[in-house]
Amino acid sequence: MSKLEDIVSLCKRRGFVFPGSDIYGGFAGTWDFGPLGVKLKKKMMDAWWNFFVEERDDMYGVDAAILMNPRTWEASGHTATFADPLVECKECKSRFRADKIAEGVSESVTTEEFLATHTKCPVCSKENWGPIRKFNMMFLTHVGAVLPDDDRELADKNIAYLRPETAQGIFTNYKNVVDTFYPDLPFGLAQQGKAFRNEISPRDFILRDRECGQMEIEYFVRPETWEDEFEKVRSLQHEFLEKIVGLPSESIHEYEVPEGDRAHYSKRTIDFMFDYPNGEEELMGLAYRTDFDLSNIARESGKSMDYRDKNTGEVFVPHVIEPSIGVERLFLAILSAAYVEDEVGGGKRVVLKLPENLAPYKFCVSSLLKNKSELVEKARTVYNALKSKYGDVTWDDSGNIGKRYRKQDEIGTPKCVVVDFDTLEDDSVTVRDRDTTEQVRVKISEL
Amino acid sequence: MSKLEDIVSLCKRRGFVFPGSDIYGGFAGTWDFGPLGVKLKKKMMDAWWNFFVEERDDMYGVDAAILMNPRTWEASGHTATFADPLVECKECKSRFRADKIAEGVSESVTTEEFLATHTKCPVCSKENWGPIRKFNMMFLTHVGAVLPDDDRELADKNIAYLRPETAQGIFTNYKNVVDTFYPDLPFGLAQQGKAFRNEISPRDFILRDRECGQMEIEYFVRPETWEDEFEKVRSLQHEFLEKIVGLPSESIHEYEVPEGDRAHYSKRTIDFMFDYPNGEEELMGLAYRTDFDLSNIARESGKSMDYRDKNTGEVFVPHVIEPSIGVERLFLAILSAAYVEDEVGGGKRVVLKLPENLAPYKFCVSSLLKNKSELVEKARTVYNALKSKYGDVTWDDSGNIGKRYRKQDEIGTPKCVVVDFDTLEDDSVTVRDRDTTEQVRVKISEL
Repeated sequence: MSKLEDIVSLCKRRGFVFPGSDIYGGFAGTWDFGPLGVKLKKKMMDAWWNFFVEERDDMYGVDAAILMNPRTWEASGHTATFADPLVECKECKSRFRADKIAEGVSESVTTEEFLATHTKCPVCSKENWGPIRKFNMMFLTHVGAVLPDDDRELADKNIAYLRPETAQGIFTNYKNVVDTFYPDLPFGLAQQGKAFRNEISPRDFILRDRECGQMEIEYFVRPETWEDEFEKVRSLQHEFLEKIVGLPSESIHEYEVPEGDRAHYSKRTIDFMFDYPNGEEELMGLAYRTDFDLSNIARESGKSMDYRDKNTGEVFVPHVIEPSIGVERLFLAILSAAYVEDEVGGGKRVVLKLPENLAPYKFCVSSLLKNKSELVEKARTVYNALKSKYGDVTWDDSGNIGKRYRKQDEIGTPKCVVVDFDTLEDDSVTVRDRDTTEQVRVKISEL
Repeated sequence: MSKLEDIVSLCKRRGFVFPGSDIYGGFAGTWDFGPLGVKLKKKMMDAWWNFFVEERDDMYGVDAAILMNPRTWEASGHTATFADPLVECKECKSRFRADKIAEGVSESVTTEEFLATHTKCPVCSKENWGPIRKFNMMFLTHVGAVLPDDDRELADKNIAYLRPETAQGIFTNYKNVVDTFYPDLPFGLAQQGKAFRNEISPRDFILRDRECGQMEIEYFVRPETWEDEFEKVRSLQHEFLEKIVGLPSESIHEYEVPEGDRAHYSKRTIDFMFDYPNGEEELMGLAYRTDFDLSNIARESGKSMDYRDKNTGEVFVPHVIEPSIGVERLFLAILSAAYVEDEVGGGKRVVLKLPENLAPYKFCVSSLLKNKSELVEKARTVYNALKSKYGDVTWDDSGNIGKRYRKQDEIGTPKCVVVDFDTLEDDSVTVRDRDTTEQVRVKISEL
């Protein structure tokens, strides 16, 4: 198995991530977080929120609806351009992303260019293609009393999309926040929420799913200061990735997106790439978006996006620095960095070396023997004391002690505390370290 | 203005809740949380999660995808029955929920019964109705490479719905959790997440919106113990509502749903009603769902939902107690209970008497005068000290001190700390209480 397959297997076996709708054979591009995945994800998202929002004085949170007025996507350009090149095999009717099955073509491949590659259908191996069509990746639905068999005109009037990004839920609230809080520049609006993309071929576990969490900030700055602010956010990103969630700095690579490849409105974009098990992939993005979004919204809504400086009286549209990170991408980066196979006592061991602030449990408490009531009772006392002090403590009395250690290694619990007969004599316990597997005796009062 | 209108106005004015897609004139049935709403909502949701999940040993979290395999909704009955009676005026083409515009009819009203009420169209006042049709409230979309102008057959094969409830995201993971964690009965699976309902007429602010947060537990019990477990969860609900989020017990009313009105699978349901400004409305539900859901899933998936007791070896399908609460409903209940208009110094005052654990900020710190640098500097020191100790502290140097107090009253900040010239002499500050408006001098070291 590849390392990614090992991680997928661990995630299912230990209750981090299950395939979505698993009981019905799954549902492509969707994943469900299990009990330990929920804990890890919440800690990771709270760590982001605390670092970028709560601990700062210049940040404001928003939480916008997933269903937005469709004019949002007219203004942002998604209705017109958020599309992949779709091609259909006329023989077997299979459909593909043209740029994924043909060599050396880009997302803007034309029908002629595609045909010239003489690509064969990956399913039936024939070469009989229909024209390339633009497939918009926004999920389309209808809002209000439109029945499935209603007339087309009524349906067209009531279209809505599942938001394909969280950014527009922030930009559309810029004016509300400015009018309510009168923030000084620079200030940022932050959001954590879901976005939906109808990927033609979802793949790579949770890396390219149809429903993904985003953690995003639109940081509003004076236009002439953008380069300084960009650098500040850039170093904050590194601090977060390396210090707060503990990713190894050697696995993070900045990719300076060259001018021709950047969105036309962006004057600078850095993709933060991570060494995932299957190769380098984008983990985080940092883009200077100029006043592109606010100006689009001003034009579409007819409302001014001007900011008035309280001290100087100057009036202008702020420019925007956008740091953006995918929840599942960060989740997988953390797991990938933590997943280690080593040898302990001559046997293979799988261990998740998660940072202490992210591990689902800080401690596992158990009794050496599960059928000795004095030991179990004592262990329960220790468990309760640690749980009321630290919160994230688990109890395990399954199997023998060796199996318990292996299980806690696999879910990343830093310390296992074991109560044995000596505990009843001297109130000390064995504390076993996940990473070194070393065991020490510690007084209960010193835990 | 009614009290509800006052609250809606406060929510917008102070940045708790804005209309969704406000900049484009809104989008019916959607709402965006602003900076203070995000803070209050997060504290409220974390309080629920801590009380019902983290502090207990019998609870497991899950976080399932919003897009689920459509067989989920076949099994649950939503495809067939999650529908409202829709009627169209043939004159002006307006559409309505039949049971909302006709007097004395239920959701199961027939065309004949509706016509017999001689209801006039609320828009054009004519009485010329089409037949009643069943309008399914699930939002429908298509997953995968289906273009809008594709053939119907392909589209029908790729239908998906936005989940209309979070419960099925829990039930479909029951087997995954049992196979991974081997929990003893009773145990619960908890989830916080969004659900979507295409309400024909969204109304009452965030009470009846199209996109709503749910906090839900499916608590799996031995069938013969359901009455005891139901009572335990029932008292937990009261503890949470009254002790943890501080709702007045006299505003909460239990409504024992009579047999004829309960879902056919439920042997007992209690609706927890709350006295909202516009009248009594459901805040929370508690239902005994028997083995209805697990048995439906077993039939639809062909997989066993049996639970095997580790001690006795008995094999059976657990029964389920379901406590369920809407995020927006709880949010509005908290605001409604906290919103008070009183008189202070001869003038009207609006104050949010939020419990301290939910208030967006615990303290507001400011300098008596904003242009005296010694005062501002000292106040900043106090602000930084309190912020590093308590986290939720705000700074306010706008307007005069009276206006600042009014503003902090409106956003529910329990204590305002003011630095003045005496502070420079004796290191004491004025601490003003939100509820009593009393001011006391306190040493900075004792804050």
